[in-house]
Amino acid sequence: MPAEYAPQRRVWMLWPERPDNWRDNAKPAQEAYAQVAIAVSEFAPVTVGASKAQFDRARKMLPDYIRVIPLESDDAWMRDVGPTFLVDGKGGLRAADWTFNAWGGLYDGLYAPWDRDDKVAAQVAEAENAPRYRTEGFVLEGGSIHVDGEGTVMTTEMCLLSPGRNPHLGKAEIEGMLCSYLGTEKVIWLRDGIDPEETNGHIDDVACFVRPGEVACIYTEDAFHPFYEAAQAAVKALEAATDAKGRRLKVHRIALPKKPVLLAGAETIAAAPGSAPRKNGDLCIASYLNFLICNGGVIVPQYDDENDSLALRQLQAVFPDKKVVGVRTREIVYGGGNIHCITQQVPDPTAR
Amino acid sequence: MPAEYAPQRRVWMLWPERPDNWRDNAKPAQEAYAQVAIAVSEFAPVTVGASKAQFDRARKMLPDYIRVIPLESDDAWMRDVGPTFLVDGKGGLRAADWTFNAWGGLYDGLYAPWDRDDKVAAQVAEAENAPRYRTEGFVLEGGSIHVDGEGTVMTTEMCLLSPGRNPHLGKAEIEGMLCSYLGTEKVIWLRDGIDPEETNGHIDDVACFVRPGEVACIYTEDAFHPFYEAAQAAVKALEAATDAKGRRLKVHRIALPKKPVLLAGAETIAAAPGSAPRKNGDLCIASYLNFLICNGGVIVPQYDDENDSLALRQLQAVFPDKKVVGVRTREIVYGGGNIHCITQQVPDPTAR
Repeated sequence: MPAEYAPQRRVWMLWPERPDNWRDNAKPAQEAYAQVAIAVSEFAPVTVGASKAQFDRARKMLPDYIRVIPLESDDAWMRDVGPTFLVDGKGGLRAADWTFNAWGGLYDGLYAPWDRDDKVAAQVAEAENAPRYRTEGFVLEGGSIHVDGEGTVMTTEMCLLSPGRNPHLGKAEIEGMLCSYLGTEKVIWLRDGIDPEETNGHIDDVACFVRPGEVACIYTEDAFHPFYEAAQAAVKALEAATDAKGRRLKVHRIALPKKPVLLAGAETIAAAPGSAPRKNGDLCIASYLNFLICNGGVIVPQYDDENDSLALRQLQAVFPDKKVVGVRTREIVYGGGNIHCITQQVPDPTAR
Repeated sequence: MPAEYAPQRRVWMLWPERPDNWRDNAKPAQEAYAQVAIAVSEFAPVTVGASKAQFDRARKMLPDYIRVIPLESDDAWMRDVGPTFLVDGKGGLRAADWTFNAWGGLYDGLYAPWDRDDKVAAQVAEAENAPRYRTEGFVLEGGSIHVDGEGTVMTTEMCLLSPGRNPHLGKAEIEGMLCSYLGTEKVIWLRDGIDPEETNGHIDDVACFVRPGEVACIYTEDAFHPFYEAAQAAVKALEAATDAKGRRLKVHRIALPKKPVLLAGAETIAAAPGSAPRKNGDLCIASYLNFLICNGGVIVPQYDDENDSLALRQLQAVFPDKKVVGVRTREIVYGGGNIHCITQQVPDPTAR
């Protein structure tokens, strides 16, 4: 699996519409998704999958240079339901099609059914002409892993060892699956993510590789911040870790929002059987780490928070050769994720 | 009622022993109480009331210059169970003996029974030769009020309008009771305190007068701090308030501890029927505002927190002519209060 900072030929997204997840019939979320798609388009072509019912609306709300294709899904988290693209080093593209169970299935998943989501990866792989490896029975989401492209994968125990994923497998067996599908040799395990109730602690809200031997990680000195313990522990663990090449990692600390981002407008979210209930004031999982690296750009969530510009400055320093672009995404975090969660890159298999 | 910064002739305390409130049979708390008594003794004589069972131990643990007298109580919060001393301007001392019901009686009080506590004020008044006004049926604790000595009393709605105190009285009637017993003309109401579950928001964790026309108030810019909303609202309300003399108040902002103070050692607290259960990790109500002003000294809680010295510096700037003394009182805050809660001053009625 190439790192996210390797050259990309396209980025995939889905179009949000579930009225039991997105407030106000998903209209504000659709605006925010459109802004993300536009921002990404500066750096790579974007394809958005939309349901039959929403196709015309998505087509109308997105600029012409963004491709919209018919694609049915249960919600709109392309990072987690889409394929993980792999390259063979000889110009070939492949796709890992992980089994998807809505972040925990009947144990602690967020909605049911999830069968349309689980079929998204195959359709995206087909559209990319990428032969596909289906991991029937091995549950994984793309947001739970990050790779450095040089043999290292990073993940969390909170997610990959959670009882709703692969309870029949031990830690060593899960390492084996990751390494054989991703082409990695070393797994760096963090213990906790920051959203135990939602994705069970996806790595993509916590830390990521920014280049070989270097990572970015959320950080706060605010001991009352709900992510304080996890952030402090993650920085410490990463500073002590070595990658597949035996390098000690350089850890770039990235601020968290200064104030809580709290769900608003929950009264316009249609409660539905099988979906987790939502209420105003629920703490949203707001992290600047949920950005997408895309060729010459880095697309970063903004929350209308005092620390928004600090995070952009910190990331610009981490990526001096890329253009760091902020997009206001409160409406997306209200739904449980952010820019990284709603995108999936297709690496350029001919790049070296 | 004279302000706390008026001359004092003595300070009263009680000796802690309840094994269902204090950890490890109250031994660490007794050490901390002794340190508070010693610190206060530099500025005024101290009398400590102890039960028959604990008398010898208290006598042994306290220096000779601290008087120990037999006094039965249910716990050890002299601010709340002791009398509020008043002066008549002609050298006479009087005592208001409020009805005490353990911070909310059977509605949301913290223990039952509380009959020995409710008899403490009469005994202290007797020891001070102070004629006593008993407010049979009007419930109040000393920690829920602060006065400026010039006609103003400050309190919180959360406490004084709580259903466990005086539900038969309206806000105007409560103002009437306060003003007639305390000799004040104006009530400054803050809405919330910071411990809704314990004292229902006593003012003495939030704000106090430091001299006529000036107050100190807790303050934090940490939006994740559990007291953030209350602290921000209190500063704002005080800055907008006028006192009995029509003065706008000058508000001195005092830091809160930087990290949460969490209950530890709860396994050594003996659970008992009628007492609120306690568990490790419970958030303690740690505020530097719970200090005692005593003649030339200000005795301030310290929590082994990064902000301890900041709070001392801030208070030294507020009280340039007094000696600001920190005492480590984690063991006291574990029990639900702090230095102000465990002391009650007797003003010098001959001072002018």
